[in-house]
Amino acid sequence: MSKLKIAIQGVPGSFHHQVALRNFGEDIEILDFDTFPSVAKSVANEEADFGIMAIENSIAGAIFPNYDLIDRFELSIRDEYYLPIAHQFMALPGQTIDDIKEVRSHPMALLQCKVFFAQHPHIQLKEDTDTASVARDIAAGNLKGVAAIASSIAAGIYGMEIIAPDIQTIKNNFTRFIILQKEASKPTTSVNKASTKVTIQDQKGGLAKLLTLIADNGIDLSKIQSIPVIEKPWEYAFFIDLVFEDPAVFAKTIDEIRASFGEVKIFGEYLSRK
Amino acid sequence: MSKLKIAIQGVPGSFHHQVALRNFGEDIEILDFDTFPSVAKSVANEEADFGIMAIENSIAGAIFPNYDLIDRFELSIRDEYYLPIAHQFMALPGQTIDDIKEVRSHPMALLQCKVFFAQHPHIQLKEDTDTASVARDIAAGNLKGVAAIASSIAAGIYGMEIIAPDIQTIKNNFTRFIILQKEASKPTTSVNKASTKVTIQDQKGGLAKLLTLIADNGIDLSKIQSIPVIEKPWEYAFFIDLVFEDPAVFAKTIDEIRASFGEVKIFGEYLSRK
Repeated sequence: MSKLKIAIQGVPGSFHHQVALRNFGEDIEILDFDTFPSVAKSVANEEADFGIMAIENSIAGAIFPNYDLIDRFELSIRDEYYLPIAHQFMALPGQTIDDIKEVRSHPMALLQCKVFFAQHPHIQLKEDTDTASVARDIAAGNLKGVAAIASSIAAGIYGMEIIAPDIQTIKNNFTRFIILQKEASKPTTSVNKASTKVTIQDQKGGLAKLLTLIADNGIDLSKIQSIPVIEKPWEYAFFIDLVFEDPAVFAKTIDEIRASFGEVKIFGEYLSRK
Repeated sequence: MSKLKIAIQGVPGSFHHQVALRNFGEDIEILDFDTFPSVAKSVANEEADFGIMAIENSIAGAIFPNYDLIDRFELSIRDEYYLPIAHQFMALPGQTIDDIKEVRSHPMALLQCKVFFAQHPHIQLKEDTDTASVARDIAAGNLKGVAAIASSIAAGIYGMEIIAPDIQTIKNNFTRFIILQKEASKPTTSVNKASTKVTIQDQKGGLAKLLTLIADNGIDLSKIQSIPVIEKPWEYAFFIDLVFEDPAVFAKTIDEIRASFGEVKIFGEYLSRK
């Protein structure tokens, strides 16, 4: 059997690569892309079996409005994954923290480790566009005195030594990722969460009524995001994640929304991992 | 008087650069940064007088959850700007469309011009991480037969010739940008829009009640986005843009929200440009 092909954004060793390994195991083939649209496209054209996308609270860099990509490429959400964000301080092997003159990383990663760097003021902070690719570049250039902040997987891939582990200031920080596939599969396990797009015709008070209907059915909202519908200025659309106990109540609620408000698109029904 | 310093994300000629020129005129100094956090930081530490950030519907690439950056860096929204998205097909001067073998651009830009490229199937599409920087690289490398999709400003800056103007499929597409400053200034014009962060204690039905209160005051919602508050799982926060006719009614509504729901942070009060 050929290996599963998993599309990720970022270089090997990135946060997306971590999620791929934890979710699908070691025996996979990674297709790494520079951008989220390229990840979505590779799943849509079946180059990849599954795709992985950060969707909330990523510190790993930019998050494209990824629900919009799922919508445009007509992909389906199969599962979600919460990755604890941990930053490892790493450099070429054999160096101590006193040898390090400079650290390069994404500004959000530097910001998240500011207590650590305040304790080591001899290290100069330089902003870069990524985390794992700095580890790759230090290894490729044999750059002494330069450190990266990246994952332990990146350290393994690029032969870096972790000088100080878990240097992030906030220890309980997670990024939510979603696992994408081309075709919606019938859920094999019990599901209690769904990602949807709801389009309503009139906004003033319309959203309040929609959310009242949802709350009256005992269904919880775990995410809501409005989408500007530019070509139809009288329409408003929202990406809404719903959390429910009974799939039958969820189905009934969707029917009620369709009857009273308009279109509902379901991107996926899955098990909440939170 | 020294020139105003405007921080942008992207290289000169990018969409952010266009907004800077249209909003502040030609006589400015551009500070260009690779990432949105760097833009926010440069405004926070007063390196730049103002910053420009895409906030909704950008096709120019990734949008970091930028309201979160405004919140973290305690910046203030001074104004907004809607830029019509127009894609110019450009290459080194003297070439015709038949000379072009390949176009390189951001996948979203390529996608938005798909009707044009379907009419010119001899041109191979290559994905890149940006739009304007491709124009820069073609000029720097004197690359014949290669085209970029970028702004007319990028064509001017990098000495490229526009072979086909306005090749985007959808002609009425806008990206919303916000203009940032460090300190909140008292609005000098009449205002009818505000960007806020509202924190509420209990989610089930709580958001429905909040939006009902807002609707009952005759205030419109132009954007809503939930924010996961990871360290306080019993709290929920939302970025909400409100549009109102009377600033006094807006102020009264904010007082009512504070009394019934909790914390409200106002990022800025400004004039809607839509």
